[in-house]
Formats: sequence, structure tokens, C-alpha cells
Amino acid sequence: MNFAKAAFLICGGWPLVCGAGQLAVPAKSVPVPKDVSPEMQTIIGAPLNPVWNVLWKTGEEWRAAANAQAAKTVQGLPAMRERLHVKVEPGVIGGVRVFVVTPQMIPAGHADKVLIHVHGGCYELFPGEAGTSEAILMAGLGHFKVISVDYRMPPEAYFPAALDDAMTVYKEVLKTTNPKRVAVFGTSAGGALVLEMMLKAKELGLPMPGAIAPGTPMSDVTKTGDSFYTNEFVDNVLVSPNGFCDAATVVYAHGHDLRDPLLSPVYGDMHGFPPTILSTGTRDLLLSNTVRVHRKLRAAGVEAQLEVYEGQSHAQYGRDDRVPETREAFGEITEFFDKHLGR
Amino acid sequence: MNFAKAAFLICGGWPLVCGAGQLAVPAKSVPVPKDVSPEMQTIIGAPLNPVWNVLWKTGEEWRAAANAQAAKTVQGLPAMRERLHVKVEPGVIGGVRVFVVTPQMIPAGHADKVLIHVHGGCYELFPGEAGTSEAILMAGLGHFKVISVDYRMPPEAYFPAALDDAMTVYKEVLKTTNPKRVAVFGTSAGGALVLEMMLKAKELGLPMPGAIAPGTPMSDVTKTGDSFYTNEFVDNVLVSPNGFCDAATVVYAHGHDLRDPLLSPVYGDMHGFPPTILSTGTRDLLLSNTVRVHRKLRAAGVEAQLEVYEGQSHAQYGRDDRVPETREAFGEITEFFDKHLGR
Repeated sequence: MNFAKAAFLICGGWPLVCGAGQLAVPAKSVPVPKDVSPEMQTIIGAPLNPVWNVLWKTGEEWRAAANAQAAKTVQGLPAMRERLHVKVEPGVIGGVRVFVVTPQMIPAGHADKVLIHVHGGCYELFPGEAGTSEAILMAGLGHFKVISVDYRMPPEAYFPAALDDAMTVYKEVLKTTNPKRVAVFGTSAGGALVLEMMLKAKELGLPMPGAIAPGTPMSDVTKTGDSFYTNEFVDNVLVSPNGFCDAATVVYAHGHDLRDPLLSPVYGDMHGFPPTILSTGTRDLLLSNTVRVHRKLRAAGVEAQLEVYEGQSHAQYGRDDRVPETREAFGEITEFFDKHLGR
Repeated sequence: MNFAKAAFLICGGWPLVCGAGQLAVPAKSVPVPKDVSPEMQTIIGAPLNPVWNVLWKTGEEWRAAANAQAAKTVQGLPAMRERLHVKVEPGVIGGVRVFVVTPQMIPAGHADKVLIHVHGGCYELFPGEAGTSEAILMAGLGHFKVISVDYRMPPEAYFPAALDDAMTVYKEVLKTTNPKRVAVFGTSAGGALVLEMMLKAKELGLPMPGAIAPGTPMSDVTKTGDSFYTNEFVDNVLVSPNGFCDAATVVYAHGHDLRDPLLSPVYGDMHGFPPTILSTGTRDLLLSNTVRVHRKLRAAGVEAQLEVYEGQSHAQYGRDDRVPETREAFGEITEFFDKHLGR
């Protein structure tokens, strides 16, 4: 590797440091890590997400793309539900569309617990049943009843519709369930929504749930976070801070300040948050925005546990129930919920 | 940024995927993260370690380089000891050279606790007093008595001398102190030595200490670990898996199998390990080899806590006591020790 030449190409000349403290990283070829399961090696070794730089500009365009993707996603769900022995039933709670996900086997200690799931997809993707895959993983691997919120997305509604819908479901669940027996979880935009829900619950004077599990949360949508840059073109899912997920979020925000903690919850006050388990991977574009939340929680005195998975890009720990690392990640979340719920 | 062109340069042609699953990462310019303290921004924004690719081949050469570096390091120690109100006294325990580091103020709950420190430096660097800086940080910020092991290094002795010396001190401390009131900590090679000590203690039938804090451990010296590649030329301390630290370790190993768990402890059996707190940074070349240890510990049922600091390269959380992130990291370790020691 010709480091000096690479730096020259990027910075236009010598010295290697391009700007104030800017680091010139030469081009490189990165092998697939070997100390992960063969199934995970396949996921990590996949080419960059081919639609990473598709940047739709309207809610209508996003919804068309989301519907096309959802049609493919739902094809895999029946077999997954069968493998994990869960049933999924659509419903409405407080006027909000949900899917109730019930495992065949619920152990005695889980019978009085309810998990609320907010799906990911950059606030634009995975409408309807397509949003239930993580809820199926959690219900099937953790043996909990899960309510998955099919929150409104553009063009049906814009910020803060997703948060409003999730809060409506949370408030309805609190009418029948001790908050200490409730957990809230989700990944990516879903992870951000989990954190946003806690900020909103504090604002409304609602009780905190017993525990939360925000997975690789989109906790900062202002392109702040070091791994946006260090892991650019390393993460094969999100790929770049200037990719599809940023574009989708901007459409959802609909002109609202992206630095508002209800869109970038890393800037919120996390004092009083419930015990939190966070998950990410070493190649994740949101590695920094997961660990920044962890640091903020710890600084606020919150019990917070961080799991970082070897070699994984964004949210790959939840990609497929047949991958050992998926069982590992949902096993950690289950153990955390078992430790904290109902206490 | 011309992604296709960069891939072409590295892989010699199209398509972008160079080998089976190899990822072509284009050259890029990475800014200093803003959501860290100004002091840490300065550390992160520093140029690459100018001696990253100095590859000495003998113990004698390494010792000469280590002595030159140590002479500079010790110049900063008196002021640091003064700022942190600790005294450092050389001694010998069981024939092994040590430094006893005592804080001016030891709270009642810490009076019966002893911490053993094993310094880092690729098994070659930081001889003598130069190895005490992390012990000073821990004693001064955590208010514990610390015994820092000045273990033998090449050319005085080779593998497993460092481990043997650390074990001698551990065994001597156990003669006077309940193991549950003992913690062992260290960073980099010191972090690896902490893990190696636990493997050796199990082998010898010795009791485990109450807790351990391996910081960004050199847990795998076989160049396995994804961040060796993803963070190559991103980490401004170690820089590359083919840099000085690898060369130094090979000299220390002296022909011994690098995959031996007493050199690459990630391959050891971690069942029965004590509660463990691990620290690393998002730019750390050893990010993967820290999280791989975390995963192994969790899989073995060990209580293990992972701290990942935003934007930091290898071991930068222990660089300077005046940096807020240093106080944060040693605050986490102190809280962890307070939770687990003496239980």
C-alpha cells in the first residue's frame, strides 16, 4: 500500500494531514473476519448495499420504495415465524396499528411482562407486517409477548407521528401493566424512537418502563459521530452518512430541526432513564452514536450495558434468526430484561 | 471521492470486491470528532505516531529504544504525581521489582484493598518508573493503593518472564490479602497480561481476584481481529497490525507459538474469570480484540462490562490525567471495583 500516494490523492498534496487534524486514511482492502460464524462471514462479506446512495426526496417516493422492499421482506416471514414458533396478529391500540407477536411458549416469569417494539428503517421503511421481523426474533428467542408498533410514516404523516404513535401504545399498555414489567426495544430508527420515547415520557410525567434495548440507535441525525467517517464504505449496510438513511430521515423530519432531541436523542437529558442495553458492531456506521449514548447514560448515572459485535455492520445482529450471533444478541437482551423487569 | 477509482488502485481492476468477500475501502479524509473534550480532540487530531513502522529485531535494540522513550516519559511523572497527590516507592516483592503507588487519601472502604498493575508497551516498552503512569492515574483518581509490577523485559528475559513476574507478585499479595479484595488491571500488553494471569491462576489452582480491568488488551497477537484492518491508518497510536507493536511482541515471544493463550489470551478458556471491565475506543486498532474478549467472557457466563470511548485510538483514555475522558474512564473502573471488590 502506498500511503503517501493515497494521501496525496485525497488531500491534493503533502503533508499527509489534510486540514486541521484531518486524518488521511489510504485506500485499503479489508478481509472478512474469521472469528465469527460462517453465516455471519457471509453477511459481512456481502457487497455494499446496492441502494445505499438512492436519495428519494419526497414521502411518496420513499413509500413506493418502502412498499417494494416490504413486499420482498414479508416473503421470508412465514418460515421465520414457523421456525421460532410465534404467531403474529394485526390489531389496533388507541387508534394505532400494531402487530401482537406471541410465542408458543411463554415461561411463568414472562407471563406478566409486555415488550413494546418500534421497528427501524430510517423512519420511512418497513411499513406494515415488514416491520415485525425484529419483534418475531425477540418473541421467539426471548419468549416474551411483543407488541410491535406499525407507526405512521410519510407520506401518511411526518415528524413526530412515529413518536406519537409509539407513545400512544406505551400509554395504553400502562393502563393494564405495571411499567416495571414493560420493556421497549427497537433498532436503528427504532432504537432512536426508544430513546425519544423515554425523553417524551419524562416530559409528560409518565413512569419509565423497567428496561429498554435501543439497538444501534440513530441517536444523532446531524452527521455528528466519528464512525460516520471512520466506517464510511466499511459498513456495507448504511455505507455513508450521505446515503439513503440520511435522505429518508430528512424527509420524515419535514423541516424540523434535526438537532431536536426528539430526532437526535443523544442531545437529550438522560437522567432517570431505565436500565438500558445497547447493541452495535465494530463496522457499524452508528458505532459512535451507540457508544455516545452509552457514555451519556453512564454520565447520567443510568445502568447501561454495551454489546459490540465483531465485524458487524449496521444492525446485522438482527439479520437472520439462523445466525449464531443473532441468538447471542437476543440472548443478551433477554438476560438483561430478565434481570431488570419486574424489579 | 472517486470510489471506483480508489477500488481500482487497490484491487487492480473491476469489480470492486477484490477477493472473496474482501472489501475495497476508498481513501478518505477523516475529521476530528467534535463531541469529545477539546483536550481529547487534540490527542485524536495528532498525526500518526512517527515511529509506528520502526521494526527492531532484537531485544537489545528494543531496550535501547525503550530506554530512550522512558527517559522522556519519566520527565512528566513528578508533576503528575503532584497533581494527583500520590507517592511512588520502588520495592521488591518475591524477588520481582515493583513500584508501590500510594494516594494521599485512601477512603475507609479502600483501606483493605490492593490493586496490582501490569503496565503496557508491547512487552518491550516502559521499563522501570516509566511503567508507573497508569498506576498513578488509578491510585490518584480511584484512591486505591497500587502495586505496579516492573516485570522483566528483553533482553533481560523473554516469554514468559513478564507473566511469571506478575504471577509472583500476585501470589505474594495473596499471602496477606483476601483475593476478593484484590483487583488486577493494565492496558494493552498489560491488559493481555491481566488475562494471561487469570488463565495461569486457573492452571495453578489459585483463587481469582475480586475483579479485573484489562484495558484494550493485546488479546490476539496473530493479526486476527477485524479492526486491525478497518482501523488501520485510522488509529494514530498503533497505526497498523504490521507496526512496532507486532515487531516488539514477536521479539518477546522468542519463537514461542503466538497463538498460545498465554500470548493470545482470547483463545483461552475464560470460565470462572472474575467480573471484568474492558475499555477501548472507536478508532482503536484493538477495538475488535477488546470486544472479542467481551464476547468470550459473556459466553462463559462472566459478568463483563464494556466501555468504548468516542473517537479514541489505542489506549488514549489513559494518556493524560488532565483530560476529562481519562477521569471518566478511571471513574468507571473505580465504580466497577467498588461494586465487586470485597464481595
